[in-house]
Amino acid sequence: MSKGLPKRSEDYSQWYNELVKRADLAENSPVRGCMVIKPYGFSIWEKMQAALDQMFKATGHTNAYFPIFIPKSYLSKEASHVEGFAKECAVITHYRLKNAPDGSGVIVDPEAKLEEELIVRPTSETVIWSTYKNWIQSYRDLPLLLNQWANVVRWEMRTRLFLRTTEFLWQEGHTAHATAKEAEEETIQMLNVYADFAENFMAVPVIKGVKTPSERFAGAVDTYCIEALMQDGKALQSGTSHFLGQNFAKAFDVKFASKEGKLDFVWGTSWGASTRLMGALIMTHSDDEGLILPPKLAPIQVVIVPIFKNADQLATISEKASQLKKELLAKGISVKYDDRDTQTPGYKFADYELKGVPVRIAIGPRDLENGTAEVARRDTKEKKVYPMNELVSQVETLLQDIQQNIYQKALAFREANTTQVNTYAEFKEVLDNKGGFIFAHWDGTAETEEKIKEETKATIRCIPLNNEQEEGICMYSGQPSWQRVIFARAY
Amino acid sequence: MSKGLPKRSEDYSQWYNELVKRADLAENSPVRGCMVIKPYGFSIWEKMQAALDQMFKATGHTNAYFPIFIPKSYLSKEASHVEGFAKECAVITHYRLKNAPDGSGVIVDPEAKLEEELIVRPTSETVIWSTYKNWIQSYRDLPLLLNQWANVVRWEMRTRLFLRTTEFLWQEGHTAHATAKEAEEETIQMLNVYADFAENFMAVPVIKGVKTPSERFAGAVDTYCIEALMQDGKALQSGTSHFLGQNFAKAFDVKFASKEGKLDFVWGTSWGASTRLMGALIMTHSDDEGLILPPKLAPIQVVIVPIFKNADQLATISEKASQLKKELLAKGISVKYDDRDTQTPGYKFADYELKGVPVRIAIGPRDLENGTAEVARRDTKEKKVYPMNELVSQVETLLQDIQQNIYQKALAFREANTTQVNTYAEFKEVLDNKGGFIFAHWDGTAETEEKIKEETKATIRCIPLNNEQEEGICMYSGQPSWQRVIFARAY
Repeated sequence: MSKGLPKRSEDYSQWYNELVKRADLAENSPVRGCMVIKPYGFSIWEKMQAALDQMFKATGHTNAYFPIFIPKSYLSKEASHVEGFAKECAVITHYRLKNAPDGSGVIVDPEAKLEEELIVRPTSETVIWSTYKNWIQSYRDLPLLLNQWANVVRWEMRTRLFLRTTEFLWQEGHTAHATAKEAEEETIQMLNVYADFAENFMAVPVIKGVKTPSERFAGAVDTYCIEALMQDGKALQSGTSHFLGQNFAKAFDVKFASKEGKLDFVWGTSWGASTRLMGALIMTHSDDEGLILPPKLAPIQVVIVPIFKNADQLATISEKASQLKKELLAKGISVKYDDRDTQTPGYKFADYELKGVPVRIAIGPRDLENGTAEVARRDTKEKKVYPMNELVSQVETLLQDIQQNIYQKALAFREANTTQVNTYAEFKEVLDNKGGFIFAHWDGTAETEEKIKEETKATIRCIPLNNEQEEGICMYSGQPSWQRVIFARAY
Repeated sequence: MSKGLPKRSEDYSQWYNELVKRADLAENSPVRGCMVIKPYGFSIWEKMQAALDQMFKATGHTNAYFPIFIPKSYLSKEASHVEGFAKECAVITHYRLKNAPDGSGVIVDPEAKLEEELIVRPTSETVIWSTYKNWIQSYRDLPLLLNQWANVVRWEMRTRLFLRTTEFLWQEGHTAHATAKEAEEETIQMLNVYADFAENFMAVPVIKGVKTPSERFAGAVDTYCIEALMQDGKALQSGTSHFLGQNFAKAFDVKFASKEGKLDFVWGTSWGASTRLMGALIMTHSDDEGLILPPKLAPIQVVIVPIFKNADQLATISEKASQLKKELLAKGISVKYDDRDTQTPGYKFADYELKGVPVRIAIGPRDLENGTAEVARRDTKEKKVYPMNELVSQVETLLQDIQQNIYQKALAFREANTTQVNTYAEFKEVLDNKGGFIFAHWDGTAETEEKIKEETKATIRCIPLNNEQEEGICMYSGQPSWQRVIFARAY
């Protein structure tokens, strides 16, 4: 099954594409740039959604749903917003097809032209703030803490499964507050929620930081992000949280009366994480044999594979396996017992490795004699034989171990691939030979940032929160600098 | 709060519209025909989703996700399918906007015209079957049992919140099978799942039946449905399950090799239920004071309202209420304690009535003296005073009672509003004066069906499953008939 998966060391990009398809995560659809999220991939996404949704609710947010269509004129109401999204949006101009006069199929009915074109939402600030205008009159209506799970569309020219697709799934939080301080606190709170989720569920270590002005969300005052490092040394932005100031409130005239009766514009935030997280998950942990999934997000945490020569053996093993499965399920562990007789154990082993199932238990005739089973962990490939009556507690411990171990491994990788440089020559050398996060001094200008990007394809991923202040000179311009920022090539 | 909600007896339609808005369920959006599902409404929908999703998984289905866009040519591949959907679809013709030369905003960029137009999915059979072609080669790949939660768009000219909107949320199951029998069994299984959900979660009694050929889903061999009766005597179709035969397999060339190595087209089903269910829920149970929700779908099952004159009283009540809330939560009951001092108890009572919270507990100073609390049920408005130590068990029983009671009430209403008629004159009289489900003989022709529809606006809702066979004559044409079918005016 995993035969022929390209090696990461030879072609990381090809390895990723093949892994995504072969592990039944996603595939390209007949529609340009759009993906089909396959059942196994979607099961992982559902686990991500459930965990995030619970965290959003625990921080006081409620879900709602806003229309997929945005009138063209709405997009234009916030100047930098339209600048950011107009160039890559799907435009609806008509609402009917009709039979072609020559019988060749259906054509667009020219009589069904919309008066105003509609855009398929690339993000929902405009349609949501136009609605908030009616919902918010007084400080008593604030804060308004909503989230939406939705599909969005951005017309990307070069797409890659999960990482960059024309349509993707995400959640977008949109909150409204009475003060700048409260909105800023919300922005940071949600950044922390994303970091918590990435580290404790996905087992992906992240750096929290703020974007430079040129990397800000179109319409935000400040954009915060979490940045993860992939195995090939490239960064992947895994969630963003925006302090919108009063920008959208002003664009859509959303005012509130304070306790003192004073009218003021509302302060806003928005924050989102998408199916891109699937890409981060895959590229942080997996190996040449296939996926490695953190137990907390694995749709199947344990697979039991019987090894048998005849139906009698299978029957005896199945009895043990069913009992074991029942006990594991009672502990809240998801288990699959794969007793198909159409595939060999070797095929099954390879397939569950490809799919990243954290723990595999094999039970064969010798195990029956000895009252044992063989337990293999996906992350380190270690195998151990345990007595049957110890299995449940061993598996429980093992799942926790794996969750910790892959996080620690990813963290060690990131530390080994984080470098401080002082000169531009050194910067380019590290970038080309090693990649990773590069901490370097920058003069704080968009001009320098842009030139470095043009010359090296590296961008400033973020200025870390609570960044250490250190006097230095910009590696590019030689101008004074007070802190190092993180550069990397990125997805 | 509920002041001014129109009376059902005076204007049912207006009552519905106002209730949907005032109870914070949904409202019209700035985009024509699309709705905003407000937080409280969405919480109910989430509970519906969770229950249905669990039922789908328990019957072996897995979720996946397919693109929102459908190439225009795909729609045409199944002849009756395109006939059914081409007239009401959103068409994407361009993928970019640009600044207007006169600076007046953004315009569609004529250079970004798509070679082939895309349709926003009205339903996903075409894009899914074009994908199944690559997934299905042999009987070993079957059955394929997938479901998708998604938004869909049908360009409706006359829209009503939840009942008929341009964009709506739904789930669509799409399954593929090796035999007609298996696909037919799946079709009926999912019809039963919908009926089970409607009756046991929504407390809405439904009739299961099959549609006449003219009411079939565009592309189906047979369409099964569940039909519910609303308080105004109109029917509401609340879920459909389609046996697709080999129609989509033929349109997209999806063949499989049987165990014997014979190539044949795959057999299909599809089945869907949407945010229309919210309309059915609202119109089945609610009254002139507001919503009545079945406890199994109520976001808040119990609200506790303190009645106090000063802060000291509130503090003592709050202590009792917090303890009670904790005990109810421990039983899995969702509770809200509303201790706001900005609103009167009377305001709160009316507001929770409007929102349909099944059980309200009021605790006042006299209750503190007596160690009691007053419990009011939303459905019958009965109030009783119970000792504090009995409250938890009383509330548990009460929630079950309410779930049962509103179902029985709806069933009794349906029975009282189901009539057998033998002549067309009688039919029209019942239709105009009483409405409801009318069982009448029909000659089985589309022509008669169409004429009755034209003359009376009544349609055949379904031919009930396991329908009693009874010789008679068609009330319209006088031709022989072997069974009665259900007529009604419908949403």
